[in-house]
Amino acid sequence: MTAINIAEKLASFSEHWSPKIVASLNDYHVKLAKVEGRFPWHAHEETDELFLVVTGKLSIDIRAGGGEETIELGEGELYVVPKGVEHAPHAAAECQILVLEPAGTVNTGDAEGVDMAPTTGEWI
Amino acid sequence: MTAINIAEKLASFSEHWSPKIVASLNDYHVKLAKVEGRFPWHAHEETDELFLVVTGKLSIDIRAGGGEETIELGEGELYVVPKGVEHAPHAAAECQILVLEPAGTVNTGDAEGVDMAPTTGEWI
Repeated sequence: MTAINIAEKLASFSEHWSPKIVASLNDYHVKLAKVEGRFPWHAHEETDELFLVVTGKLSIDIRAGGGEETIELGEGELYVVPKGVEHAPHAAAECQILVLEPAGTVNTGDAEGVDMAPTTGEWI
Repeated sequence: MTAINIAEKLASFSEHWSPKIVASLNDYHVKLAKVEGRFPWHAHEETDELFLVVTGKLSIDIRAGGGEETIELGEGELYVVPKGVEHAPHAAAECQILVLEPAGTVNTGDAEGVDMAPTTGEWI
């Protein structure tokens, strides 16, 4: 039993928008991802989703209350997207994030016809 | 809706071993704590518990398989104590941590007669 080093895990892969599972907590998965550019609009009807920025800057566009707003996250900042809320993360430059959500949550949520392979993440 | 800045939240209190809730994710709470010295041995029979070190160094003594071992965590490292496993966190110098567990989880778990007030954390 040893600690999981977030930076070392992040250094072990390079793909963008491809979450890697590094730990489980009950029926939740702790995932790490490198992101850059835009991710499609989607929602997760069954769960909240936590984003924590490890390095870089992440923006999350949110549709709520009939309007749109953007949540800006810097290093060491976190935000929980409530379940059912449409969101679209994006990053102008590569950003490293930790994501927490129930095991089996698909990254693209309810999005359809997007140019991105849906995934629940793979263990590293 | 704004991001939660972990460092700012940690700067807002000074007590040791007094977890503060900063976010909820479904029925889980994200807690921050400052720790120094030893916490009593205890287990959480119903849940795993995630520790992530924000600053400093944390040690977690673990009783498993009839023996004891110590997990050493540095900044940016995390460890999940499995449910039912006796553990005793300690830190030689002040350490800042993020803890993730189901809402309502009591910090002292099944420990009895300890010189520390059990708490589920308070929102900040």
